[in-house]
Amino acid sequence: MKLFERLKADAAPQWADYTQHDFVEQLGDGKLPLECFKHYLVQDYLFLIQFARAYALGIYKSPRVADMRMSLEGVKAILDVELELHIELCGKWGMSRDEIEQAPEDTPTMAYTRFVLDAGMSGDLLDLQAALAPCVIGYAEIGRQLSAKGCDNDTNPYQRWIQEYSSEAYQSLANDFSSWMDGTADDVMTERRYPRVLSLFEKACRLESDFWQMGLRAKV
Amino acid sequence: MKLFERLKADAAPQWADYTQHDFVEQLGDGKLPLECFKHYLVQDYLFLIQFARAYALGIYKSPRVADMRMSLEGVKAILDVELELHIELCGKWGMSRDEIEQAPEDTPTMAYTRFVLDAGMSGDLLDLQAALAPCVIGYAEIGRQLSAKGCDNDTNPYQRWIQEYSSEAYQSLANDFSSWMDGTADDVMTERRYPRVLSLFEKACRLESDFWQMGLRAKV
Amino acid sequence: MKLFERLKADAAPQWADYTQHDFVEQLGDGKLPLECFKHYLVQDYLFLIQFARAYALGIYKSPRVADMRMSLEGVKAILDVELELHIELCGKWGMSRDEIEQAPEDTPTMAYTRFVLDAGMSGDLLDLQAALAPCVIGYAEIGRQLSAKGCDNDTNPYQRWIQEYSSEAYQSLANDFSSWMDGTADDVMTERRYPRVLSLFEKACRLESDFWQMGLRAKV
Amino acid sequence: MKLFERLKADAAPQWADYTQHDFVEQLGDGKLPLECFKHYLVQDYLFLIQFARAYALGIYKSPRVADMRMSLEGVKAILDVELELHIELCGKWGMSRDEIEQAPEDTPTMAYTRFVLDAGMSGDLLDLQAALAPCVIGYAEIGRQLSAKGCDNDTNPYQRWIQEYSSEAYQSLANDFSSWMDGTADDVMTERRYPRVLSLFEKACRLESDFWQMGLRAKV
Repeated sequence: MKLFERLKADAAPQWADYTQHDFVEQLGDGKLPLECFKHYLVQDYLFLIQFARAYALGIYKSPRVADMRMSLEGVKAILDVELELHIELCGKWGMSRDEIEQAPEDTPTMAYTRFVLDAGMSGDLLDLQAALAPCVIGYAEIGRQLSAKGCDNDTNPYQRWIQEYSSEAYQSLANDFSSWMDGTADDVMTERRYPRVLSLFEKACRLESDFWQMGLRAKV
Repeated sequence: MKLFERLKADAAPQWADYTQHDFVEQLGDGKLPLECFKHYLVQDYLFLIQFARAYALGIYKSPRVADMRMSLEGVKAILDVELELHIELCGKWGMSRDEIEQAPEDTPTMAYTRFVLDAGMSGDLLDLQAALAPCVIGYAEIGRQLSAKGCDNDTNPYQRWIQEYSSEAYQSLANDFSSWMDGTADDVMTERRYPRVLSLFEKACRLESDFWQMGLRAKV
Repeated sequence: MKLFERLKADAAPQWADYTQHDFVEQLGDGKLPLECFKHYLVQDYLFLIQFARAYALGIYKSPRVADMRMSLEGVKAILDVELELHIELCGKWGMSRDEIEQAPEDTPTMAYTRFVLDAGMSGDLLDLQAALAPCVIGYAEIGRQLSAKGCDNDTNPYQRWIQEYSSEAYQSLANDFSSWMDGTADDVMTERRYPRVLSLFEKACRLESDFWQMGLRAKV
Repeated sequence: MKLFERLKADAAPQWADYTQHDFVEQLGDGKLPLECFKHYLVQDYLFLIQFARAYALGIYKSPRVADMRMSLEGVKAILDVELELHIELCGKWGMSRDEIEQAPEDTPTMAYTRFVLDAGMSGDLLDLQAALAPCVIGYAEIGRQLSAKGCDNDTNPYQRWIQEYSSEAYQSLANDFSSWMDGTADDVMTERRYPRVLSLFEKACRLESDFWQMGLRAKV
């Protein structure tokens, strides 16, 4: 069994809370208040800056050049592409680049990102991957599920977001990440270590749920 | 002006929210529900483990042996003394060591501790000190204020906690920390850097308030 | 004065030892034994892998997205371009990719690279830059000087190496690095901190000289 | 088999080079020139400062409080005891504290210490232990062997050094370290990972040999 599938099964309640969160449901049926989405999107921009640091940590932590290149793809995807997409998307809703970059980090943003960075710094590459996995692979599952239900229709104001994460490009990136984590686990995973890896995964799922909840709380 | 006084003045709202939080008020007048205090105390135990890691990071980050020794005092205080005091205190309210050590980390515990660890790892010793200061010095101020108001009287179930942090030993530790931070600032602080240091301090204050709030939320 | 010029002036003996090292002189007049150059080149490949980790650390350590992007350019330059150039160049002298990647790290390679990584991890971005600067900017100065003396002529077996580091592209990269370091220094440098920064720079120069010496020692 | 015994067997040549180095032989028969020993001792002082940082990293990296306490013992041993012993010992040969603390770090000192720090930071606790082991356990073996041969007699000017490392206290510390490493390996070691751990151990042995060689080179 792939490590990700095992983690997902063993953290089933946390995984369900995260991937079937109210925020996701409302985003899927288009009823999510725009204020909630905008707050989420700005925080996700600040989140991505920290995630680029986490992928950079992956380069630093990699025992092999091939691993370094996998992490480099993650850094590039964020710094060269995703940040600008967020600026564009936010621009459509009248938010300026300055407004986004100057926004204060909300607590759930700090909580999740610093947790991942510390998990990676204090542990090894597998610990970092386990803490990153709920975000990287979870968004792919959410995108795929919403798309399968037809939520990415023209009437949904969040169509583009769903299309982004259900896209072949993103699905492929998530699959590559999962295989990369398997490769690392083949080298360094032991059964006695597994509970610690699972604990990182579970905590990251909980912190993802808190991140959605932060979006819902933004309703005016 | 001491750096701490400047930071406290410039982060006055966050400092007030934290040091005059409802949790603190209720603890002072003895009306804090025991459930709230117990939840706080168990989480504070988990918090201290991470803070010992942060002080260890201070040793790693220190440019001078004298700085290493200051950080070492912090590690020793936690690993050799404070953790056992928590176990004792918790024991009085019927909680076992196992119950405490196995408790899951609540989100505000993760948020604050990982923020400090990442601030210290990504920055230098001054960044680490600025992120630690609200906890180390703030508890001294809270203890002093509650004691000045006579809250540490025999009828207050939280007398011992107030006595601990209003004690000469703790007040002295907090003063030493403040002077140590001044010494570091004398070496490496610039006006252009100050806003970043202030931002770390403000965020740490906010995360302390969230930590108290977590205690209040535990009311059954 | 630019920070680099100040460091270079204050570490004049170490800078001269490094940039006018016998290895450099012999490389310039084409008399460097091929065995020496090959040993250097293989070790430089292993060196670059660690330097990619150091630039990744720069991303992790950056307080601003603009700084992250500067470091990212360094990682990309190594992982996407330079490593393959080394493999090509080594191939011309009959060394296979495997032979290069499996070569054991020589002590001077470990000494210099781990010093830079630790300087960066224990300090802040300026410390990392100061430890990287002798390599990044020194190679540009060496390339420029050798080219100015006409050493990059068709009879020199090391023509291509000289052309690489005297090229406009590399000179520009080194200039950008120097300006980037100035920008960081504008924010965080103090006079009391300067001796520590200078010490990092001096040590890195010494470790560069040791790296050349390692090449010379390889003579059979 | 204990992990240490396996590593020692698989790195037999490097282990022999290190533990039976000329410096050790001459120290044992008392013929080591005093200049060599003094240079070694001053560099060992600078070395210990970095090793205290490495043990502090062990606290930071520990997944359990018990592991944190093991690392804390290492930090305390250096900062509270060993540094002062070096100052005393150096004092007997006319070196002042200032002379020692202001001595420039020699390259082999930088090479070994920064290698250990980077191994620990980029990997996990086992990687750190594998890089520390040659020093911690090797000195115990050297002390034991020299003592068994009667080298710690009254005519040997290096009697005290030999007594220190053949003492029950130090032998016990080294045994505890070895058991601690076994405990970590029980949790996280895999056969596919072993070659990487062995590589760290081998490199650390080589860097120890270089450290002795630096002492011999100091002969005037």
